[in-house]
Amino acid sequence: MIEKLLKTRNPKSPNSSKFPQIMTRKSSLLKQTLILSAFTVLIIYVSFNTFLSYFTTTATAGVSATTSSFFAEQISRENFQEFPVKATGYERKVRVFMHDLPKKFTTGIIENHGLARGYSNLSKVSYPGHQHMGEWYLYSDLSRPESDRVGSPVVKVNDPEEADLFYVPVFSSLSLTVNPVQVGKVPVSDPVYSDEKMQDELIEWLEKQEYWRRNNGRDHVLFAGDPNALYRVLDRVKNAVLLLSDFGRVRSDQGSLVKDVIVPYAHRINVYNGDIGVDERKTLLFFMGNRYRKDGGKIRDMLFQLLEKEEDVLISHGTQSRESRRTATRGMHTSKFCLNPAGDTPSACRLFDSIVSLCVPLIVSDSIELPFEDVIDYRKIAIFVDTESSLKPGYLVKLLRAESTERILEYQKEMREVKRYFEYSDPNGTVNEIWREIGQKLPLIQLMINREKRLVKRDSIEPDCSCLCTNQSTLFTSL
Amino acid sequence: MIEKLLKTRNPKSPNSSKFPQIMTRKSSLLKQTLILSAFTVLIIYVSFNTFLSYFTTTATAGVSATTSSFFAEQISRENFQEFPVKATGYERKVRVFMHDLPKKFTTGIIENHGLARGYSNLSKVSYPGHQHMGEWYLYSDLSRPESDRVGSPVVKVNDPEEADLFYVPVFSSLSLTVNPVQVGKVPVSDPVYSDEKMQDELIEWLEKQEYWRRNNGRDHVLFAGDPNALYRVLDRVKNAVLLLSDFGRVRSDQGSLVKDVIVPYAHRINVYNGDIGVDERKTLLFFMGNRYRKDGGKIRDMLFQLLEKEEDVLISHGTQSRESRRTATRGMHTSKFCLNPAGDTPSACRLFDSIVSLCVPLIVSDSIELPFEDVIDYRKIAIFVDTESSLKPGYLVKLLRAESTERILEYQKEMREVKRYFEYSDPNGTVNEIWREIGQKLPLIQLMINREKRLVKRDSIEPDCSCLCTNQSTLFTSL
Repeated sequence: MIEKLLKTRNPKSPNSSKFPQIMTRKSSLLKQTLILSAFTVLIIYVSFNTFLSYFTTTATAGVSATTSSFFAEQISRENFQEFPVKATGYERKVRVFMHDLPKKFTTGIIENHGLARGYSNLSKVSYPGHQHMGEWYLYSDLSRPESDRVGSPVVKVNDPEEADLFYVPVFSSLSLTVNPVQVGKVPVSDPVYSDEKMQDELIEWLEKQEYWRRNNGRDHVLFAGDPNALYRVLDRVKNAVLLLSDFGRVRSDQGSLVKDVIVPYAHRINVYNGDIGVDERKTLLFFMGNRYRKDGGKIRDMLFQLLEKEEDVLISHGTQSRESRRTATRGMHTSKFCLNPAGDTPSACRLFDSIVSLCVPLIVSDSIELPFEDVIDYRKIAIFVDTESSLKPGYLVKLLRAESTERILEYQKEMREVKRYFEYSDPNGTVNEIWREIGQKLPLIQLMINREKRLVKRDSIEPDCSCLCTNQSTLFTSL
Repeated sequence: MIEKLLKTRNPKSPNSSKFPQIMTRKSSLLKQTLILSAFTVLIIYVSFNTFLSYFTTTATAGVSATTSSFFAEQISRENFQEFPVKATGYERKVRVFMHDLPKKFTTGIIENHGLARGYSNLSKVSYPGHQHMGEWYLYSDLSRPESDRVGSPVVKVNDPEEADLFYVPVFSSLSLTVNPVQVGKVPVSDPVYSDEKMQDELIEWLEKQEYWRRNNGRDHVLFAGDPNALYRVLDRVKNAVLLLSDFGRVRSDQGSLVKDVIVPYAHRINVYNGDIGVDERKTLLFFMGNRYRKDGGKIRDMLFQLLEKEEDVLISHGTQSRESRRTATRGMHTSKFCLNPAGDTPSACRLFDSIVSLCVPLIVSDSIELPFEDVIDYRKIAIFVDTESSLKPGYLVKLLRAESTERILEYQKEMREVKRYFEYSDPNGTVNEIWREIGQKLPLIQLMINREKRLVKRDSIEPDCSCLCTNQSTLFTSL
């Protein structure tokens, strides 16, 4: 590594023998730099000394409080004092290698998406804006030169041998929508593009890769933002870290909070840039979206029936279109609360629209999972109501009307604080936070890799699982 | 915090106005320091520049390899370039607060242990050496002043409000052995000390603590090294991170690789300080210990029958005593391989004795879990054989005799490399590695804490679990 560094010097001074010459020419500037640097070092030294003495004082006080003098003496006899400050590797950044996928799994899908919509100039098609475009942002991030990525929690490496983790940048969600939905029409019998074929070919490609095979995919990362993405091959990639919106279509042996990362949808509504406040938010509760959904989403029609008669509630059926997005933007920017019921699966893009609109989410989706929940306490930005309670006549509006202006302002303030977590285009936003979450999985991934290789066959044919459980009976409720 | 820092200055220069004076007196030394510092800064600057340019060059090459020029252009249009280098809190050390437990749960147990053995001078009793003394080392570590802990992966805090995690320094394993075992005698009807009472009182104390109650113990850490430690109250502390030797007596809803940390026993045999080599190791396989054990340990008697007739195998029954420890030391230091069968539970102290003796462990314990397996690949230091195969006549000795001297030396070399992980008294040894493992649990702990507080009751009364599973059918075997 050091050799490599020495070989690839700064292109602005490619010849190392020129170095003294540069020093002479820039000696005046250098002198100033030297003095400045020296003072910086001095200040750091003084601060550090002060810092250490603070700890020594308070911590020693701590010992005598909890330990009798004899045991304290025993403790000081231990070898500990000679502790050497060693690099433990603990704070090293996680290293990621992006697989050089054949084009048909990445930008080729963008081109196919354009072709299917009649674009003739393929050299100008770009990744289309939609709620699952996170896959584009992660691909873009790892495609940038490393010098643009200095603040990222992970380092991109160009040699797979140096990698801790492997990113497979397939556009699995875009692939689902390459063929335009033709409402009411007979499906084209022989469509040009096949998502299923793409999935099968991806597995075929992956299973040929040395680094995938090495650990059965455990150290690989794949984006499957749309609940239907990769549905056909989920069992073949289930060892990998999956970037998912929820576990709605994923079996518990295919995905879990322990193994995978919940990622936010890309919001589709413009960020509300006004100040916090309720004066411009006359509507109590707003919802616009599909009234009729499968599974957990059946609750939507019931909520419509309960709420549409309320005067300060704006609830309307609407499907995806530029026009409805305009209406929704207006609605979310002028309402105090935004209803977030379950869709076909527990999560929906609307939650992130609500947050960037500073419209307090009212979440009615019992099995929802939320992104970055290790660092975000969602009770500070949203109200959670269980499905059963939400269907009691009058319950929801009574609950919301009882929220004070002060409390709403607190929610709004907190939403403004965490907004960057839901901004894929923010240089310190969603992309970095997803990498941070992925990086945190590494110790368990490495444990599983080492452990699986030395395990011997046991009598049991039951899967050998390590779990983290929540006891339902001890749960808090929002009631 | 800054205020505190300013108030508690370096005691060696308590008066800040004396600073210029010190500067003048030490000006010569200072001048030298300045020059040295300036050059250091310069060297860092040059290296950093070189480093950056290396990444820019190679990474840009990476983009053009995987991305067509148009998409590359799109990527560079993204906002990413303006990335601000922000402190994300990602590399901050984990902060631990040690509960100020009543003495009866810590050093009081040492005193009771002494009393029960007739020591009259309690001011001189110390924590007795035994395989579960890890609990003493962690307590000692957190009792030291923070200035002695600079290389630790965790920072001790004296204010619980600043803590990420809470350590409960109960001596749960020592408590089990306070009353000496009286072989063949009727148990004392009213012993002075009761481990059960200690456990009950501990729970009573914990459940009164604000910080325990706040998150149902999820952010707490307890040592339960002996498989029977805390057995009576395991259900009451199961949310906490438990420091365990294995999961032999722990139900899957009480402990798991995801939630807990597997810790090593303290080795009881002296470290082998000689060089690697096989010349002084004439015995092929060595074992000394209890021939008769319960559960998985029943294999021991069967292995005795198979192995005791082999000429180059030394296998003998022996219970804990100073004399047998001497014999075992001699045996482990002069053998190539050391047999490690399951005991009453899958793990045993013997494994760590073998490692520090550079005697290659032959592990016959199908459900064993191993400490620090995220960083240690145990296939490099040990041989794993499943129980069924180990009982085939001639199988084990044939396997071991086939190992080349070269291979044995590799095992030994690797054991010498990882030895420090199993040295509780090493300033950069087991204690630090346990803290590192505990620190890695923090993101999942915080996720569970935030999630449990916002969860609403669901229809299901099934426990809500997140798991990481190993599919038995895809397992490698050592065969």
